[in-house]
Amino acid sequence: MLVQGKNYRTIWLKEDNDKIVQVIDQQLLPHKFVIRDLISSAEVVLAIKNMTVRGAGLIGVAAAHGMYLASLEAAESDNFTDYIERIASDLRLARPTAVNLSWAVERQQKIMDKGNSVEEKITLAKSTAQEIANEDASFCQLIGVAGVKLIEDISKQKQGDVVNVLTHCNAGWLAFTDFGSATAPIYEAVKKGIKVHVWVDETRPRNQGAKLTAWELLNNNVPHTIIADNTGGHLMQNGLVDMVITGADRVTRMGDVANKIGTYLKALAAKDNSIPFYVAFPSSTLDWQTSDAKAEIKIEERSGDEVKYVEGLMDNKLTKVLITPAESPAVNYAFDITPSRLITALITERGICEASEPALLGLYPKESSIND
Amino acid sequence: MLVQGKNYRTIWLKEDNDKIVQVIDQQLLPHKFVIRDLISSAEVVLAIKNMTVRGAGLIGVAAAHGMYLASLEAAESDNFTDYIERIASDLRLARPTAVNLSWAVERQQKIMDKGNSVEEKITLAKSTAQEIANEDASFCQLIGVAGVKLIEDISKQKQGDVVNVLTHCNAGWLAFTDFGSATAPIYEAVKKGIKVHVWVDETRPRNQGAKLTAWELLNNNVPHTIIADNTGGHLMQNGLVDMVITGADRVTRMGDVANKIGTYLKALAAKDNSIPFYVAFPSSTLDWQTSDAKAEIKIEERSGDEVKYVEGLMDNKLTKVLITPAESPAVNYAFDITPSRLITALITERGICEASEPALLGLYPKESSIND
Repeated sequence: MLVQGKNYRTIWLKEDNDKIVQVIDQQLLPHKFVIRDLISSAEVVLAIKNMTVRGAGLIGVAAAHGMYLASLEAAESDNFTDYIERIASDLRLARPTAVNLSWAVERQQKIMDKGNSVEEKITLAKSTAQEIANEDASFCQLIGVAGVKLIEDISKQKQGDVVNVLTHCNAGWLAFTDFGSATAPIYEAVKKGIKVHVWVDETRPRNQGAKLTAWELLNNNVPHTIIADNTGGHLMQNGLVDMVITGADRVTRMGDVANKIGTYLKALAAKDNSIPFYVAFPSSTLDWQTSDAKAEIKIEERSGDEVKYVEGLMDNKLTKVLITPAESPAVNYAFDITPSRLITALITERGICEASEPALLGLYPKESSIND
Repeated sequence: MLVQGKNYRTIWLKEDNDKIVQVIDQQLLPHKFVIRDLISSAEVVLAIKNMTVRGAGLIGVAAAHGMYLASLEAAESDNFTDYIERIASDLRLARPTAVNLSWAVERQQKIMDKGNSVEEKITLAKSTAQEIANEDASFCQLIGVAGVKLIEDISKQKQGDVVNVLTHCNAGWLAFTDFGSATAPIYEAVKKGIKVHVWVDETRPRNQGAKLTAWELLNNNVPHTIIADNTGGHLMQNGLVDMVITGADRVTRMGDVANKIGTYLKALAAKDNSIPFYVAFPSSTLDWQTSDAKAEIKIEERSGDEVKYVEGLMDNKLTKVLITPAESPAVNYAFDITPSRLITALITERGICEASEPALLGLYPKESSIND
């Protein structure tokens, strides 16, 4: 997607040195646009941990690239398999909630197992990293094509008047390789000339909405307005929201959704006001092995300091300010579970379906049984 | 209540000069504890507007004090009545949503009408300002006495285990003259030795929870934890909240509640998880003239910059940082409406009642018809 008029992906191999992974540093957005070189698998692990790269899709793609760098390093180590195993574990543990991490790592491990020599393993790891990135992008594009129909329908009902979409957190192209999940139908709608306006939940405590979603919509000329997370209910009560689209960090086979903390509250408000609530994600986010979201999904608990301190720009310098009494404790759960009963439909690269096991099995008859 | 071990109210007449109103400057909390002199009615209007004083109860009491200062100024003006009328209008318009403002101003106007001389009017205005402050404090104390029973019941059910109360915004003593509305039952419970822990919604965009509620609980030794506004639903889903108590900026005769933006979302989550949701307020917050909350209550829209910029402490200096792209717009609705169907009960100075017109009429048989 566009950044200052130029097309970018969020992650790629450096043009003149394919042993270096380059990423957009999302810690500095929207204030500074900086591209970082990641020169080792350890740097990839760190980039995932400190959220230089973040978002369910992108951390999967980044992990795949980390595995490729690991294969280069493993070639120099005493024991290729042990080394790969260790980095695989580090990558898997870098963030606990999104399923994409372990999905990408396992896919790399399986493909490397098929290589007959170290050189072959490296070649396979490299091509698989790129394949996963391309797949991620094309899946997001397909989500856009599927989801735009929902926006189009509302646009028709409103006789061409602006369609107001509310989104939470950043499930934009920055959370993937390109296009995004929740944003893909929006970008597609804009491309088709449909009038859209996006309500951007700022998404405390890390403000991914205010920082990332707003920035990418701005750079791609999509009309939008930032709101405090508290505001969505009021907007819905007053007819100012036509639909909600969020992303997902993990979707169970029952259609329950783990996503950024606060998603559940918006789903409740949408239900209470009869506003359709959609969750968009590529199949890499589907966790066929999980049936009971509440019991089985580990909700990441991050540092309370992310609540107590807010980072922003002052005098063109990134600055952290304390917003609470220094002595007061804070807790910081990163995700919550939105039960399928609150979700109007799921939008995937294979189309739109009800948030239920039978509907998901209908779209994914083979995948659902692979890791059953 | 206690500030650094010493008892304070939020507003009072200066000890050695009763023509000066003193208030705690709530713009600087929790970082700096500063007492401000307000020496004219215009300064009171400004203090209400810029939120040096805020909270439904306190802005009513402040307005009453502003009217007293206005009476002193009016005595020096060409036309006492015209002057009073003008300041009354300024005070009423200083903030649009809470009913306490116009309630206090009208009460002062009516009482001054009874004075036969300017001196008498001034004396009446002064005593009424103090009366309104004392009433506000004693009403809050009575709310505490009524509401503590609800906490006590849960404590018994939990066999003395900690009762987890979630609150939104600041309906603490800082929002009134003393004790608070939502916090009064909590302070009363602590006094009675009941184990309580408070989940403090930070309450974006102005962070009154993170800044004010946390600070007052800290100063009064009440265990608490600050959370992002997005978090309450997750806590409720996981049995970590036993009850919700919020304040109100305006309550209609039907029992619908206008309160800080985001209250509605917490009420939905409480309902969805069968957690009792209480709204605590003194009768000055009741608006008998309003039946249709949505149609009749004007929801204050504040500057989008309150969303885009966050103020906090850096190197012991109050500093504002920009958290969004500079070019992205933001909107900032200050309140929302929580319909009575989501409210378990109302807690007033006269006791606990259902959120309904008949129940409110039962508690307030006379008041309800006065301004019908």
